[in-house]
Amino acid sequence: MSESRLVSELPSPAFLVNLPTAQRNADRMLERFRQLRVTLRPHMKTHKTLEGGVIMTGGTRRCIAVSTLAEARFFADGGFDDILYAFPVSADKVEQCAILTERLEVFSVLVSEFDTLPRLAARTLAKGKVWHIWLKVDCNNGRAGVFVDQPEAFDLALKIGRSAAMKLDGIYAHCGNTYHCHSVAEIQAVAENTTEKILAFCSRLAEVGVTTRSSIGSTPSCSLPVPRMGALSEVHPGNYFFYDVQQLHLGSCRAEDVAVRVLTRVVAHIRHRGQLLVDCGWTAISLHGHGRLPSGYAVIQDHPEIRLVEMSQEHGLIDASEGQEMDFEKFPLGAALFLIPYHSCAAAAMHSVYHVHDGDTVLETWTPCRGW
Amino acid sequence: MSESRLVSELPSPAFLVNLPTAQRNADRMLERFRQLRVTLRPHMKTHKTLEGGVIMTGGTRRCIAVSTLAEARFFADGGFDDILYAFPVSADKVEQCAILTERLEVFSVLVSEFDTLPRLAARTLAKGKVWHIWLKVDCNNGRAGVFVDQPEAFDLALKIGRSAAMKLDGIYAHCGNTYHCHSVAEIQAVAENTTEKILAFCSRLAEVGVTTRSSIGSTPSCSLPVPRMGALSEVHPGNYFFYDVQQLHLGSCRAEDVAVRVLTRVVAHIRHRGQLLVDCGWTAISLHGHGRLPSGYAVIQDHPEIRLVEMSQEHGLIDASEGQEMDFEKFPLGAALFLIPYHSCAAAAMHSVYHVHDGDTVLETWTPCRGW
Repeated sequence: MSESRLVSELPSPAFLVNLPTAQRNADRMLERFRQLRVTLRPHMKTHKTLEGGVIMTGGTRRCIAVSTLAEARFFADGGFDDILYAFPVSADKVEQCAILTERLEVFSVLVSEFDTLPRLAARTLAKGKVWHIWLKVDCNNGRAGVFVDQPEAFDLALKIGRSAAMKLDGIYAHCGNTYHCHSVAEIQAVAENTTEKILAFCSRLAEVGVTTRSSIGSTPSCSLPVPRMGALSEVHPGNYFFYDVQQLHLGSCRAEDVAVRVLTRVVAHIRHRGQLLVDCGWTAISLHGHGRLPSGYAVIQDHPEIRLVEMSQEHGLIDASEGQEMDFEKFPLGAALFLIPYHSCAAAAMHSVYHVHDGDTVLETWTPCRGW
Repeated sequence: MSESRLVSELPSPAFLVNLPTAQRNADRMLERFRQLRVTLRPHMKTHKTLEGGVIMTGGTRRCIAVSTLAEARFFADGGFDDILYAFPVSADKVEQCAILTERLEVFSVLVSEFDTLPRLAARTLAKGKVWHIWLKVDCNNGRAGVFVDQPEAFDLALKIGRSAAMKLDGIYAHCGNTYHCHSVAEIQAVAENTTEKILAFCSRLAEVGVTTRSSIGSTPSCSLPVPRMGALSEVHPGNYFFYDVQQLHLGSCRAEDVAVRVLTRVVAHIRHRGQLLVDCGWTAISLHGHGRLPSGYAVIQDHPEIRLVEMSQEHGLIDASEGQEMDFEKFPLGAALFLIPYHSCAAAAMHSVYHVHDGDTVLETWTPCRGW
C-alpha cells in the first residue's frame, strides 16, 4: 500500500523499515554470492512480506526458504516459486505440502527422520510430481537435523536419493551456532567446519552415484563468507535483510546497515523516579534484548545517555544511564525515540504492519504473513 | 467461527483456550466482586477477543478496559460500550480518542500529566460530549501515573474535576508490583496499601467538593481481594480469564484454573543429544518463561520428566529433566505435548487465532485484535 505520510507523524509504536538500507543489504548479499558463484536462497522468516521477498530475490520471485507452511502458501499466492519449507516436515503437514508440491514448479520439504519417508510416500502426488526433499543435517550446529557423522544420515540420504517417488534436492545445514560466537574468527571457523562437513558428505554420496546439492545458512556466516563456501551449491541466510544489534555485535554488519527500528514516544514524565514513560512495551519489540545490552531492552538511537530498563505489555520505562540524571527538558511529552532492536526477527514478529520509509517519508506499508 | 475438529487433529503449533475453564474464571471474578458490591471492569488486554469480552462482562458488553486504541475500536465495532482506554493518552492519539468519545456512550481516557489537558481541550467534541478522564496515579506501584502523594496529583484531579469540558471519571491505579511479590500476604499488603492510598485521595477530593470513583487492578490482587477493596468503586483485572504459570506461582489460581496451552508436537528425535525437537519456538509461546522455571520456557503438561530448554524462531528443544535420560519410545514422532505458558498475555500475543475447546472438541476459533 502506498502512503504519503511522514515517519514523524505515525502513531506510535510503529515498526519502521528503512527501504534504501534493506535494499542495499539485499543487493550486497546477492552480489557477494554471485561473485562466489553460489546460489542465494534468501530466507523469508525475518520479514515474511512479499515486498521483501521481491527485493531479496532480485525481482525473480524464485528460490526462497520459508519457516512455516503459512509462509509457503503466502509466497506461493504472491507468485513465488521454488520454495523450500525449511522446517522438518511432520505428519500433520503432509497433505498441505502435497498440495503445494502439486501446485508449484518446485516445492521442497526438509527431512531428518527415516519415519517421515513412508508418510510422504503414502500421499500419491498428482501431475507426475515427486517429493522434493532436502536432508537436514546437524554439523555440530546444535539444533535440528540428523548428525552428519552418523551412518544413519548417509543411509537416509541414499534412501531418498534412490527412491523413484522422491528427489534428493540437497543437504541442508543451519549453522545457528554462529550466534553463540564472540568473534568473526569464531564465526568463520564454524562456517568453515559446517561447509567442510557438508561437502564431504556430498562427496561420499557422489562416490556411490547420488549427486546432490549443498546449502548452509545463517546471516553471520553469509555476511562474512569463508572462501571454502564458494564450493557450496546454495546458502540460505535471512536476517541480513534487516540486521539488528545482535548482528552488529557479532560483526555481521555495521551500525548503518540496521534497517529496522521501533518508533516510540514519551507519554509521561515519571518525575518521582527520574524516568520517562514511552509507548513501547514488549508487544512492540519483544523481550529478546533482555540482559544483553547496557542500554537495556534495545539501543536508543542517538541517545546513549538513556536506557530502556523495564517493559510490560504496552509500557516502556527509560532511565538515565549509569551515573547520569534524567534531563526531562530534553525529552518533552511527545518526543519521538527510535529503538534499534536486539533481534529484528523477534521485533518484526510483534507487528502486523511495517512502515517502510526513506528518510522521514513513509513510502508504503508492508503486511507480513503470520501463523503456521 | 464454529468448528468440528478435534484438538488432537489441529496442526501445530496452536494456541488452545479451554472454554469451560475460562468461563469459570470469568464467572468467579464476576461473582467475587458482585458480593463485594464493587464494579468489575474486566481488562481485555490478555485475550483481545470479542468472544472473551462477552464472557468477561457476563454478556453485557459494557464496562471494559483496553490497552490500545486498536482494541478500543475493535470492541466498539463489536458492540461494546463504556470503554476505558487504560494507557496514558498522548497527542498522536487525541483525534482517534475524540472520534470514539463522540461515537460511544462512554469512552474514557487515562491522564497523568497536566500538559495533556490543553491538548484534549483543543479538540472540541461534537454531540455535547465531554472528555471522560481517569487520573492515573502511582501508589508506589512503580510503573505509570503521577505519584499519589505529590501535590501535583491532587491539583491535576481538581483541575479535571472542575473543568466544564471534562468529567473526572475516577482515580486509577494498577498495582503491577503484585507481580514482584513472593507470597499471598505480600500481594495482599500491596493491594491494601494501594486501596488505602487511592481511597484517601478520593476522600480528600470529596472534602473540596469533587466526588469521583476509584479503581485498582491486577489479577493477583483481585483474585485474592482484601476486605478493604470492598470500598472501591471498581477493579480492572485482565489476566484471570486465562491465568498462567506465573499466576499459579503467585497463588492467584490453582493449576486447574489455567485455561490456555500451546499444542506442539515431536517432529524429530535428536538422538545424538538425547533431545526431542518440537514445533514450538518463541513465535508460538514467547520467551517470557526464560529463566523462570525448572522446566525451562514452559511447563510441559503431565510430563515433569522433560523440560523445554531451548527455543529459536520455530524450533523448541526438549531435554530429559535433571538426572534422567530421554525415553524416545515414550515420545514418538507426532506425539502431542501441551505447553502451559509462563505468561499467557505474552503467549496469546504471538497468535492470530485461538482454538477454543472443551475437552478434545474444538468448539470455535477466536480472532484477537492486534496492533495499536
